[in-house]
Amino acid sequence: MSNCIIAQSGGPTSVINSSVVGLVKANQELKLYKNVYGGLNGIEGILNKNIINLSDLSEEDLRLFQYTPSSGLGSCRYKLKDSSECIDEYSTLVSILRELDIDTFFYVGGNDSMDTVAKLSKYSKENNLNIKFIGIPKTIDNDLKFTDHTPGFGSAAKFICTTALECYLDSSVYTNNGIFILETMGRDTGWLAASATLARINGQPVADFIYVPEVSFDRLKFLEDVRSKFEENNKVFIVVSEGIKDENGKFISEFICTSNDSFGHTQLGGVSEYLRNLILDAGITTRVKALELGILQRCSMHSAANIDIEEAYLSGYEALKYAMDNLNGVMVSIERISDTPYKTKFSPIEASKIANNVKYLPTSWINKEGNNLNDEAFNYFSPLIGDTPTLNFENNLPKFKAFTI
Amino acid sequence: MSNCIIAQSGGPTSVINSSVVGLVKANQELKLYKNVYGGLNGIEGILNKNIINLSDLSEEDLRLFQYTPSSGLGSCRYKLKDSSECIDEYSTLVSILRELDIDTFFYVGGNDSMDTVAKLSKYSKENNLNIKFIGIPKTIDNDLKFTDHTPGFGSAAKFICTTALECYLDSSVYTNNGIFILETMGRDTGWLAASATLARINGQPVADFIYVPEVSFDRLKFLEDVRSKFEENNKVFIVVSEGIKDENGKFISEFICTSNDSFGHTQLGGVSEYLRNLILDAGITTRVKALELGILQRCSMHSAANIDIEEAYLSGYEALKYAMDNLNGVMVSIERISDTPYKTKFSPIEASKIANNVKYLPTSWINKEGNNLNDEAFNYFSPLIGDTPTLNFENNLPKFKAFTI
Repeated sequence: MSNCIIAQSGGPTSVINSSVVGLVKANQELKLYKNVYGGLNGIEGILNKNIINLSDLSEEDLRLFQYTPSSGLGSCRYKLKDSSECIDEYSTLVSILRELDIDTFFYVGGNDSMDTVAKLSKYSKENNLNIKFIGIPKTIDNDLKFTDHTPGFGSAAKFICTTALECYLDSSVYTNNGIFILETMGRDTGWLAASATLARINGQPVADFIYVPEVSFDRLKFLEDVRSKFEENNKVFIVVSEGIKDENGKFISEFICTSNDSFGHTQLGGVSEYLRNLILDAGITTRVKALELGILQRCSMHSAANIDIEEAYLSGYEALKYAMDNLNGVMVSIERISDTPYKTKFSPIEASKIANNVKYLPTSWINKEGNNLNDEAFNYFSPLIGDTPTLNFENNLPKFKAFTI
Repeated sequence: MSNCIIAQSGGPTSVINSSVVGLVKANQELKLYKNVYGGLNGIEGILNKNIINLSDLSEEDLRLFQYTPSSGLGSCRYKLKDSSECIDEYSTLVSILRELDIDTFFYVGGNDSMDTVAKLSKYSKENNLNIKFIGIPKTIDNDLKFTDHTPGFGSAAKFICTTALECYLDSSVYTNNGIFILETMGRDTGWLAASATLARINGQPVADFIYVPEVSFDRLKFLEDVRSKFEENNKVFIVVSEGIKDENGKFISEFICTSNDSFGHTQLGGVSEYLRNLILDAGITTRVKALELGILQRCSMHSAANIDIEEAYLSGYEALKYAMDNLNGVMVSIERISDTPYKTKFSPIEASKIANNVKYLPTSWINKEGNNLNDEAFNYFSPLIGDTPTLNFENNLPKFKAFTI
């Protein structure tokens, strides 16, 4: 009986640890491997032999870990080159896996991680290594192709909707409330911002406008939208994705900030502040507030969605079954069978199809004006936010367990 | 049988509506008034006869309202001048109250509102008006004198501690995590920032440093703190109050921004961004993140503290009992009898003593280095964050009820 290893990569989510627990539990039940190892800090840590044994964990620790947000095994933003470019790295990795008698490597991540899975499985097949590489989806951005949605998204959406409701109430207390701008994450796609369409009071969406990257942002149209709504209601509530772009495809946030992250992505943030200044300069009102939800969107386990935790768990569980079926180079994908009642099934999809690919919000879900969402969007998002989990508590605060702190 | 009126003023909290419900329920039980009216948008709304009848509310609406964050009756930032300066306003108010046969005015607010209560009760006594003015405490800032703490604070502290834990995990996933700065509200005092001392994993506080306005902020000392902790741990987690000041009493945030609110307070925010730039300029690391929690601190009912909702309710209930005892110009205050088990009692205190007065964090709770809190602080804060309420839900999101939206 050989072993397997699981690691996490890319930006954290609230439910990424649930996938690890799902895999560990699947192995307890299906007894495929002797040990489930955990690679700390993704592939970078594995290359440094930074590895723990997750099969030793107690039931209590597993439960704590499942309800702990953020990558509890640590993460990395390590972009694996093609094997032709850095064969040493590939052979180092293989020798480490061989040393620990590991025949399957599970990688929980987004499209960059699926690129790693695709490259490693290709290398393994080409060289008859008999080591499998299987991907488990994870990203709050919900931008992976060939899956209805991604674990991590529902909890982020639930936090966004909950705080949108609360911020709307907070920004409605005065006779002259002015304008409120809530900024969500979403570098390339509008899934997160769009989910705010679920935030409703008395059946009415709190967001007057939702701006997403799928519609090119027109400053003059924006100011017209805001001015006319402000004249009508004396207040405006706006949700905006950090990744909105102008007609030339240039990030609006780049008009403020141009620093880069290590992958060459433009670092975003501050779009709401930019819009705030646009409104102030246009003289619509002097009362404009902007709030960036920032990383809270991806780590607020206290406001996670149970269904998301469960699907993350099942994705880990399913991945082990794919290994049992001897699949290599696939990712667990979620197919939606029906909205009401909400029903899904899991199936394997080639990781190479997911890698370096982006799934956009369907433009048919966006209204003609390009500034809000329609009922199709509501029906899609609604089942994903589910009810709230019961966390473990200590001194009236959530009790968390992670391995890299 | 005459009537009473209740209104809310100043910045919202998550539990301010619970005080209104406490008063309505007290009147249902003690039958002191025929009707409990609600003044919309504070004293400003009452002067405009913007008044509803809260006695008509159903049990279900009362429950929804109790668990709705932010001032559901609306608020104002209306500073009442002395009666000698604007006698017209006083007589207009009195004639409106007379018109509705109102003999008690309850005002839920912070020290500016208690100034209003003090002025109006003085005017009432001097002119034998036989109208009572009673204050119910409310502020997330916890800076009212002569009360152990204020309703609203515990829920804000609970949100700060919960998100501090979650952000700490999020900022600990890489091998090179860098420095994280979490900015809390707290213009004049450090209560909110200091409460983050409760956020602990395995018994260890997640915050390496907590900076509060009660200690003058020394840039060089700060950079020494951060540099040495970063050399030791390769990461630093900082909590900072928006209101920290330099040795001359100048707000650190003023070095970035100088706009004013309508009361002449300096509008704060951005201190974490300022500290981020200090660290970057000092060359300690290039990986520095800053997050302002902003208004989420005062409206996150989804992460409120049950004990806070209960104490807000009891403050409203108690206020009606003071009216029954014919008190005028007092505020409900909370006295702590013991930490463990947590026991309190309520008593009336002169509103004039609260007005325009500030309660600072005791310096004996701050460590010698001036950059963290000690066990006395932990023992004080601990009982205030309590467990989490069970909200009303609709489509898996909290269901809220407010009267001004």
